[in-house]
Amino acid sequence: MSEPIAASTAASLRKGDLHGSLSDPVLDTMNFLNEITFRYPKAISFAPGRPYDGFFDTEEIFAHLRRYLDHLAAHGTSHEQIRATMFQYGPTAGRIRELIASSLREDENIDVPAESIVVTVGCQEAMLLVLRALVRGPDDVFLVSSPCYVGITGAARLLDIGVTGVEEREDGFRCADLELAIRTELARGRRPRAFYVVPDHSNPAGTTIPVKTRHDLLELAARHDILIVEDSPYRLVSPAPHLPTLKSLDRQRRVVHLGSFSKTAFPGARVGFAVADQLVTDDTGRTSTLADELAKIKSMVTVNTSPLSQAVIAGMLIACGGRVSELNTQAADYYANAMRATLRQLDRCFPAERRAAVGVRWNEPDGGFFLTMRVPFTAGNAALERSAENFGVIWTPMSYFYPHGGGDHSIRLSVSYLTQEEIVDGITRLAHFIDAEAKSPG
Amino acid sequence: MSEPIAASTAASLRKGDLHGSLSDPVLDTMNFLNEITFRYPKAISFAPGRPYDGFFDTEEIFAHLRRYLDHLAAHGTSHEQIRATMFQYGPTAGRIRELIASSLREDENIDVPAESIVVTVGCQEAMLLVLRALVRGPDDVFLVSSPCYVGITGAARLLDIGVTGVEEREDGFRCADLELAIRTELARGRRPRAFYVVPDHSNPAGTTIPVKTRHDLLELAARHDILIVEDSPYRLVSPAPHLPTLKSLDRQRRVVHLGSFSKTAFPGARVGFAVADQLVTDDTGRTSTLADELAKIKSMVTVNTSPLSQAVIAGMLIACGGRVSELNTQAADYYANAMRATLRQLDRCFPAERRAAVGVRWNEPDGGFFLTMRVPFTAGNAALERSAENFGVIWTPMSYFYPHGGGDHSIRLSVSYLTQEEIVDGITRLAHFIDAEAKSPG
Repeated sequence: MSEPIAASTAASLRKGDLHGSLSDPVLDTMNFLNEITFRYPKAISFAPGRPYDGFFDTEEIFAHLRRYLDHLAAHGTSHEQIRATMFQYGPTAGRIRELIASSLREDENIDVPAESIVVTVGCQEAMLLVLRALVRGPDDVFLVSSPCYVGITGAARLLDIGVTGVEEREDGFRCADLELAIRTELARGRRPRAFYVVPDHSNPAGTTIPVKTRHDLLELAARHDILIVEDSPYRLVSPAPHLPTLKSLDRQRRVVHLGSFSKTAFPGARVGFAVADQLVTDDTGRTSTLADELAKIKSMVTVNTSPLSQAVIAGMLIACGGRVSELNTQAADYYANAMRATLRQLDRCFPAERRAAVGVRWNEPDGGFFLTMRVPFTAGNAALERSAENFGVIWTPMSYFYPHGGGDHSIRLSVSYLTQEEIVDGITRLAHFIDAEAKSPG
Repeated sequence: MSEPIAASTAASLRKGDLHGSLSDPVLDTMNFLNEITFRYPKAISFAPGRPYDGFFDTEEIFAHLRRYLDHLAAHGTSHEQIRATMFQYGPTAGRIRELIASSLREDENIDVPAESIVVTVGCQEAMLLVLRALVRGPDDVFLVSSPCYVGITGAARLLDIGVTGVEEREDGFRCADLELAIRTELARGRRPRAFYVVPDHSNPAGTTIPVKTRHDLLELAARHDILIVEDSPYRLVSPAPHLPTLKSLDRQRRVVHLGSFSKTAFPGARVGFAVADQLVTDDTGRTSTLADELAKIKSMVTVNTSPLSQAVIAGMLIACGGRVSELNTQAADYYANAMRATLRQLDRCFPAERRAAVGVRWNEPDGGFFLTMRVPFTAGNAALERSAENFGVIWTPMSYFYPHGGGDHSIRLSVSYLTQEEIVDGITRLAHFIDAEAKSPG
């Protein structure tokens, strides 16, 4: 060990030597979107899927925390126990499972024991846990509705899991397409395990699955013995009436329901959860629940979800008696108005008689943050840059969301973070951009 | 889709069909330890590695949060920006990187730019990110000092990464053993990437690497072009003087330093970090840092660390001017007294002249939470149960911490969570148990 160390031995890594998930085309294009947003700060952006924060109030954080501490004290928790509850690690599966279970009963007609819930660091961690538990190896198939939220495909890539996309039609998901995908995988000798879907106001497409199709989907899952992984963060920030969740219709423990408080209550708390009441039996006949197994994995990912974050969410749940929907009445109106303003301005800019000629069409979601627009040109990064540079408007290429390619002529518009004035101005700019692209010889 | 669904189609999963990480022997034995603790609530337990919470104060959470908000306002952050800072998702790499970088300069003589830091959900997430980034496939070798903290081996299992253990001697880590392991892997055609080590008051063994060996280790890493992953959560809760961290000695960006506020400040905040200033170059010659790449992976695990948790930690850092060591002067004294009381009582129960006859010996850490004791019987789950049942004392079998087996005749004693009276009583009980085992014919 006496050789001198040359300066050239300073550590440097080649990207190709790192794990493949780091060089992902989706992450790279997402980075491009961030870069465009940074380079054109004055552009109106229909890209971010963030909740509007005008309804939040920083002082409320203190009030929610205090309310939870008072709640613990009122239920006989001693000063020392409260201190340990807040400061120590706490149980891996979470501290506020009873409150979440009660909220799901109140608000969503989902009746599950608290023990079937695992509290996670946002819904993203729940996705990672579910993927890890259900996919044992390369013969296991995890199906996703496509186009698809990048969180689930990203987590799959991290775990070296290849997902199988089930392409949505322009009017949304069809059971027949899922069944075909299942049969195709079975014919290849693979084992379909689960299907991930956002049934309400999906990200990115903005589609909603009708009630009849929800029943059919559950029946299909039972027939092929797969699980449904339901993720529905935009339901309760959408105007009522809400369609029933898949989990509320589930009589056979077919559905793993993923929950998030990031759109409805407090994005920065990073609190989500999984409802996983499925029974798991080992070789000796001993049973546990899928929630128990998810908690074991969680112990290797984040150990536990911050009791501080859980306490603030608990304070919010206590304040509204678990009725997160009521907590969001005003927000749901706000987003619905934003969506209506967007659709109204699209109508103005592209009257019905002009649409076919220009080659545009769009869906008309009655809730959620997103809508899809078909455009008459390749809507990739180059077009996005022209749009930002020359027309001052930013959107998300739909192709980002297709695990196997596709969506080259579609864009996603997010309406959640803009004022009505910005929406009218932004859609007008978008229309000018589309007209210019449609006329351009390229 | 018209076939009726029989009740027998209710979903049920076989454990063998789930991912292998769920059926891990370490997790199972850890569960056994929890079960024993639950079944013998009156036993004195030397098992939990939790910090003592007597120095925590629930009201301080409000004060720390307020201090950070005031700090933002004093630095010109508007009311609306503060609201967005607290409530929205925030940057994946973290919000309080400047404060952490400044604390590392103040306290640890580690001088790195804030951009080389990624704030994580506890140190556990940092381990997962580093493992994922550095290990591309089965030919990449991740070495760990053995016995080893279960967090790193657990995260590796989750990612289907097999770690290579470098067994510590009874007096601690030796560079020659690491070099032999590296050469063995190279001879097998594999590529050693990094070595994970807890240099100060390690969990589980309680060993500390001397300064000379730290320098040799850095030289060895340079010679074989591997990285050192340094994890040192017990340093600043140990009495001064502290040996220099590997990162503070690192002139070649060989060391990825993992940090945790869970032992020093606030376990329940779940805030840790990775310092990863290594350069990463892609095929086109474009460079990023390893921290940038870790943040990309983090976006698929937890999206970002709760700004609320970060705010409370920031408030603590501001209050102590970044000197986490000073914040922990009282706690370090407390733990040092606990360790001394433990060693004193071991001396009393097993005077020097009796030790060899009984077949016991132990190390004498001058800090940290843990010490290792060699015992004259197989210290597995059966012995643990006898110890709890008949003698009212609980400890951790050292075998839990060996990735490739070993440690069958050693136990880990944790001193962090007990009063002096409990320690004296508990060690006396332990001595009676050991005497009984030593005499038993089995």
